[in-house]
Amino acid sequence: MNIGEFEFIERIKAGFNLPEGMTGIGDDCAVIPQASGLDTIVTTDLLVEGVHFLMEDASPEDIGWKSAAVNLSDIAAMGGKPVATFLSVAIPGSVDESWMARFIEGYKQLSDIFKVPLAGGDTTSSKGGLSICVTVLGQLPSGKAKLRSSAVAGDQICVTGFLGDSAAGLKAILEGSEKTTDMETLVRRHYRPLPRIAEGQMLLSSSGVHALMDISDGIASDLKHILEASGVGAVIDTDSLPISPELSRVAAEKGWDAYRLAACGGEDYELLFTKDPAASLPLDYTVVGKITKIPGLIWKGSDTTDYKGFTHF
Amino acid sequence: MNIGEFEFIERIKAGFNLPEGMTGIGDDCAVIPQASGLDTIVTTDLLVEGVHFLMEDASPEDIGWKSAAVNLSDIAAMGGKPVATFLSVAIPGSVDESWMARFIEGYKQLSDIFKVPLAGGDTTSSKGGLSICVTVLGQLPSGKAKLRSSAVAGDQICVTGFLGDSAAGLKAILEGSEKTTDMETLVRRHYRPLPRIAEGQMLLSSSGVHALMDISDGIASDLKHILEASGVGAVIDTDSLPISPELSRVAAEKGWDAYRLAACGGEDYELLFTKDPAASLPLDYTVVGKITKIPGLIWKGSDTTDYKGFTHF
Repeated sequence: MNIGEFEFIERIKAGFNLPEGMTGIGDDCAVIPQASGLDTIVTTDLLVEGVHFLMEDASPEDIGWKSAAVNLSDIAAMGGKPVATFLSVAIPGSVDESWMARFIEGYKQLSDIFKVPLAGGDTTSSKGGLSICVTVLGQLPSGKAKLRSSAVAGDQICVTGFLGDSAAGLKAILEGSEKTTDMETLVRRHYRPLPRIAEGQMLLSSSGVHALMDISDGIASDLKHILEASGVGAVIDTDSLPISPELSRVAAEKGWDAYRLAACGGEDYELLFTKDPAASLPLDYTVVGKITKIPGLIWKGSDTTDYKGFTHF
Repeated sequence: MNIGEFEFIERIKAGFNLPEGMTGIGDDCAVIPQASGLDTIVTTDLLVEGVHFLMEDASPEDIGWKSAAVNLSDIAAMGGKPVATFLSVAIPGSVDESWMARFIEGYKQLSDIFKVPLAGGDTTSSKGGLSICVTVLGQLPSGKAKLRSSAVAGDQICVTGFLGDSAAGLKAILEGSEKTTDMETLVRRHYRPLPRIAEGQMLLSSSGVHALMDISDGIASDLKHILEASGVGAVIDTDSLPISPELSRVAAEKGWDAYRLAACGGEDYELLFTKDPAASLPLDYTVVGKITKIPGLIWKGSDTTDYKGFTHF
């Protein structure tokens, strides 16, 4: 199938009416109001062998860790607190008990960091490759979810952490680069992203924070969702994209384009948010641009060539 | 992998501690307490091409319907009300837009019957076959979930509807049987099961109802989960298993063993429950046996050969 993911999702969305107060397809999580003063937020991701991971490159523990991480990152992207995860796995004949035990170990290592229980799931055999479906339930105060649609012209565009490390790590894996200390750090950031759960909750409770999402496909691609949902535009200064010391050194040595990796590379699972310029926040972040009234995404800086991001399919 | 599903799930369960009040792996749904007086219940199922459905036999609409149905049945199996569904699909290159549109149409047809919105999901490409992961959130009054562990010695064992129709329908599909009206009914019951949502809620609010689950693998296999969870045994009278008029006629004509299909055949998605013999219930059901103090499952009746049910893997 060669239909874009977002177009397909939009079509599904058009066919289903959501009840009053429920927010569904189109943000990092669905928001389901509860009578308790807390909203339930839900995210689900399907990870497929050969598309999201290669079993010959990644360890079972890494695949387990990352399966939990990408979903917990969606909870962080709403400012929520994770409550429980659900894990379903379709297991091909080539996968043995020891592989599965190591996979679960990696899944548990990350879950334990955030004290999130595995509360259910499903296992089945597979005639194709390994498929992993994770669903996470989270919660946050009613009506407080940080949506993609809340950016306001004049906002600063901010990101947590560094961008491009995961893409550089993947490049190193695929090219079979030698394992220097820097390279190992980048590879670890690819396989073992740490979702910004604490930072998401700090952004939720800070005044002046508007739109929020996580960076899974690269800022070039992901920022567009905020712009479209909010009906605004943006100017990004490529020179301000936060590059880690490790990526700087590796890029200089190998001739890689660090800013391109930072702009278009996916899977950093950092948070991308917009805020009132006057708002002071109790966490580390980098301002990379600003929201404008005029729709469209403009790149400024020393290198602005073809920062288009990538789409699934 | 040749480890049994339940053994694997037990091992996962042992590694994760659930917070007070949360019920996880081992029942039809996980139960997550909310401060509102309502518990959130969650179920997830992964359906895989070549394992759960054959794309050359089933229509896209049927696969869509059934993907929603098997999960909604787990909500019924706790006595809950469905609140929202989440649908993730890994789509191989061989599946086109028109197939997916028809799949969604079938999914929506069933969802609309129970007025359950599709609130989110994920789509990705697949290098193997089609994989479908559905998660459903439901709710019920706090602490009222009907669990598998509540059967009491002396209880009657009851089922809704008829047993064996789905297995007979599958047999007809696989054997390429001629499409008589009866056969078409059985095939429809295989492809288009109607989850017992209303009946589950009636059982939840009726006094004297103890254990509850749905029949997905056949009563011979599923009842054992109630027996193990409750620490009791059972006697089943095979002659009392409810056989539909359609299955009776087809079985007589083709020489099929209707009672064997009813006892061991899966995917009827009827409800299996135990109740105080004195309890009067406002719905149709059939008493098929009774719960005993002595562990083990005893078959009585004219045909009791090897009713072992089946396990996944």
